[in-house]
Amino acid sequence: MTVEIISVGTEILLGNIVNTNAAYLAEKCAALGLSCFYQDVVGDNEERLMGVIRTALSRADILLISGGLGPTQDDLTKEVAAKALGKELYLHEPSKRMIEEFFQKRGIEITENNWKQAMMPVGCIVVENPNGTAPGVIMEDNGRHVVLMPGPPNELMPMFENSIMPYLNELEPGIIYSQTVKVCGVGESKAESMVEDLINTQSNPTIATYAKTGEVHLRVTARAEDEKEARKLVKPIVKELKGRFGNNIYTTQEEITLEKAVVDLLLANHLTVCTVESCTGGMLAARLINVAGVSEVFKSGYITYSNKAKRRILGIKKPLLEKYGAVSPETAKEMAKGAAIISKADVTVGITGIAGPDGGTDEKPVGLVYIACNVCGRTNVKKYNFSGNRMKIRENSVSAALSLMRESILKYYSEVTFGSNK
Amino acid sequence: MTVEIISVGTEILLGNIVNTNAAYLAEKCAALGLSCFYQDVVGDNEERLMGVIRTALSRADILLISGGLGPTQDDLTKEVAAKALGKELYLHEPSKRMIEEFFQKRGIEITENNWKQAMMPVGCIVVENPNGTAPGVIMEDNGRHVVLMPGPPNELMPMFENSIMPYLNELEPGIIYSQTVKVCGVGESKAESMVEDLINTQSNPTIATYAKTGEVHLRVTARAEDEKEARKLVKPIVKELKGRFGNNIYTTQEEITLEKAVVDLLLANHLTVCTVESCTGGMLAARLINVAGVSEVFKSGYITYSNKAKRRILGIKKPLLEKYGAVSPETAKEMAKGAAIISKADVTVGITGIAGPDGGTDEKPVGLVYIACNVCGRTNVKKYNFSGNRMKIRENSVSAALSLMRESILKYYSEVTFGSNK
Repeated sequence: MTVEIISVGTEILLGNIVNTNAAYLAEKCAALGLSCFYQDVVGDNEERLMGVIRTALSRADILLISGGLGPTQDDLTKEVAAKALGKELYLHEPSKRMIEEFFQKRGIEITENNWKQAMMPVGCIVVENPNGTAPGVIMEDNGRHVVLMPGPPNELMPMFENSIMPYLNELEPGIIYSQTVKVCGVGESKAESMVEDLINTQSNPTIATYAKTGEVHLRVTARAEDEKEARKLVKPIVKELKGRFGNNIYTTQEEITLEKAVVDLLLANHLTVCTVESCTGGMLAARLINVAGVSEVFKSGYITYSNKAKRRILGIKKPLLEKYGAVSPETAKEMAKGAAIISKADVTVGITGIAGPDGGTDEKPVGLVYIACNVCGRTNVKKYNFSGNRMKIRENSVSAALSLMRESILKYYSEVTFGSNK
Repeated sequence: MTVEIISVGTEILLGNIVNTNAAYLAEKCAALGLSCFYQDVVGDNEERLMGVIRTALSRADILLISGGLGPTQDDLTKEVAAKALGKELYLHEPSKRMIEEFFQKRGIEITENNWKQAMMPVGCIVVENPNGTAPGVIMEDNGRHVVLMPGPPNELMPMFENSIMPYLNELEPGIIYSQTVKVCGVGESKAESMVEDLINTQSNPTIATYAKTGEVHLRVTARAEDEKEARKLVKPIVKELKGRFGNNIYTTQEEITLEKAVVDLLLANHLTVCTVESCTGGMLAARLINVAGVSEVFKSGYITYSNKAKRRILGIKKPLLEKYGAVSPETAKEMAKGAAIISKADVTVGITGIAGPDGGTDEKPVGLVYIACNVCGRTNVKKYNFSGNRMKIRENSVSAALSLMRESILKYYSEVTFGSNK
């Protein structure tokens, strides 16, 4: 079946906000095996919105429409969509009660226009919205399915996840099941070439690659009669990917991020961590601290952007900085070592690099970054050459640091287990 | 004149990437005074792309089409757009030479398909692309203007800025001139209510508000015969806004960010800075360090997420933490003071708060944040109640900290100047 994603909102047409809803819905539809051929953005204008909906009805089986369900006169989506399908509106009592409750809980008075949000097209499915006052709507007509969702992402996303996705999943015979294999420490093009043969011969399950900063996500999707059957189809491919990417796979769970995987690894091994950052200036610590529950493992973080701070806080010797420079494997190593001494943390990371736009030389160009990770006294140092602007280089450095932390911890335990002294 | 923004690319339809190009172009068009009523996304498919272009030609004066100008067989935009306007393609020698040079510089061999990028519609304007091999194209037909741009944002944005914008600006009589007034430390709805009367009575110049995290940008746009005339129209409105928002305006320059304004203020007053972060975990330091040239002022940064780190690194006394709690004005103040002692920086900032999702109580709910800023011994502490998820609360905290830094520095100098001892 085909789907068309329609976003309603003047703020998108004016460029006030980026249309992240469309990207979210598109990715979810792809995972559901639905083909999306068109996305549209249109404002809160009856004539133009009607035109877009009519065109979409002529070329897609499913319309996913977001925005314009608010209580003001400007919000027209429900009224126009119902009209396009020739459906009248009526006062939907459960929605009315829900709106009453919503306002009572917050101690706000209900104004007359709020009842507009309880008016529903005859014969529609009303979809609960626990995060706002605009319920979702599903209308069916002549084999077409028109889904209306509120515009705010924090209302749209949970509604889609909990109510719309299960509905869409049942439209086609069988079900779609997908699993994501998340890979770090392997470049995008290398990762793609490592699965090219699988992608080229794929049909069911399919394999799709998604490049993220410093990571590649591989999504394996199967369609089958039931979930058990679909899982059976996905399993051997995931196994094959595990064989090919080995330890570079940090999770096969959709909700686990790279920083969460690193924090989980620290927690599982009762390890504490301390970060020392130069060019990334706190971004690594910030990503780790975005994991709720990190307080168990995060001892402290230092931002030593200047040479003076590297000397004063970490005790790095001036001659070493002068001999090798602040951006060198030696300095990165000393940063990680110095952090271990001052913080007593088990795992310490030092990042030093040239993020640009200035400060690069032929020998040490913009994008050159050294990262050292020390695990209980054993230090790994790696060299990176990143491209892009200052922010991109810093983001890549942080992802690389997380990968290196994972790698260094796993290496430490494999060496300890196998009794290596290297 | 009206504009329609068409983005071509399967990766947008699959949700692999967010359509930031459309948001960028939409904002620029709004600033140019062009009305955008529709945005579309379509894949690299001849029939569907042709349909979208024909529909757009029937309802807009200007088509801004991005993507699909690459060298592969999949890239169809130029071919289809030319066909829609009945124009043939020919080999454009300057583009051919440019492509040759581009590859020679990088020492890469040119493959046969690269010449496809030098084929141009008869009678078109070829637009230079200094950042890639796909030139832009402008076609004119029957009063309509079709603009083709490469998809990668780092190619599209400079091309639009340098070549397309001046072209569009000349389509309508007179020119558009706009100035952005950036405000911090004032909430979105308050800022809007402060200019509501101006917005409601606006015609030329117009005033538009853009809410950013912790900031509001006010764009004043005028159309006039020439730039001098337009500037004359903009000037009194900007003056009026300056009167209303006073010191909360941190810049009237488009390219200055809040962190850049803070760094510039530090530089101008020869002040050094040290950050101490708990819930934001390095995000404030990371934003400051995104300003190139920050090394002059940034002394060091500390991430003291745990109470232990607050005690050990900053010397905050255990009884104080126990009496008031880690999230309290007292602790924020001690963090800023402790930072001043250990770093000897002139300006120090302490941030402590509850970012959630757990850890909130009735008395201290999720979103409660205290920020203290110490300037040469004088400390300001502020309380904030932010809403949203963990990341949103942390982002708001960082913006608030930057605002407070600005405010505290300005306050310090006004007090010093006026001899206050408070």
